[in-house]
Amino acid sequence: MRVSRHVAGMNSEVPEPAFDEQGLVPAIAQDVDTGDVLMLAYVDSEALDRTRETGLAHYYSRSRDELWQKGKTSGNAQHVEEIRIDCDGDTLLYLVRQNGGACHTGYESCFYRSIDGSVVADRVFDPDDVY
Amino acid sequence: MRVSRHVAGMNSEVPEPAFDEQGLVPAIAQDVDTGDVLMLAYVDSEALDRTRETGLAHYYSRSRDELWQKGKTSGNAQHVEEIRIDCDGDTLLYLVRQNGGACHTGYESCFYRSIDGSVVADRVFDPDDVY
Repeated sequence: MRVSRHVAGMNSEVPEPAFDEQGLVPAIAQDVDTGDVLMLAYVDSEALDRTRETGLAHYYSRSRDELWQKGKTSGNAQHVEEIRIDCDGDTLLYLVRQNGGACHTGYESCFYRSIDGSVVADRVFDPDDVY
Repeated sequence: MRVSRHVAGMNSEVPEPAFDEQGLVPAIAQDVDTGDVLMLAYVDSEALDRTRETGLAHYYSRSRDELWQKGKTSGNAQHVEEIRIDCDGDTLLYLVRQNGGACHTGYESCFYRSIDGSVVADRVFDPDDVY
């Protein structure tokens, strides 16, 4: 499946992201070609601005407390084709082309396991080669 | 696209959801047939248990402070085919069959707008008929 991207579409009001009390909203990254959900990370106002300016997915790392360009170290960057926002503005959806895999474990998607622990995907890269 | 569901797969350890300090994790609902990302909501331990027991998506409403069965009022329930968990256990992915639309505004997906405000989808139901 190729995710249908924005075509004509009415223009309504420009939505304002509803950042939480930490100044963050979750952003889901979805592969625009396969439809696979790749990962979820958090975005602050700066990360969103940088994503829109550069076309490369930026997030805010809560553990490292810093702006983070996905793939800057690993090369597994995400080229953002479109950004969507949900009805109440508190979640973003990045439609991306993923270099390599999105997950630091070597899988294309961070969602490579069922909740019972079954692995439902194959590794697309060896993390030892990348990190 | 039909999202490929869990087939053989190795069994690794059973992952433990990493609930945050409020006891919640975000859960992304994705249509298992179309691959569309439908919504994001939050899940506590009880909502996850109820989802697994019933096969119907349950969430925890942060605004109403209560367990919430999606579609209980509107009829727009989500039948959960599989639950995935991400690499660090702090996000879930529900693969669902969606009755009607997921969004209270009448769209199939809550992500019916581009961040510039363009509407990228058609309504699938009239919210006045449902709520």
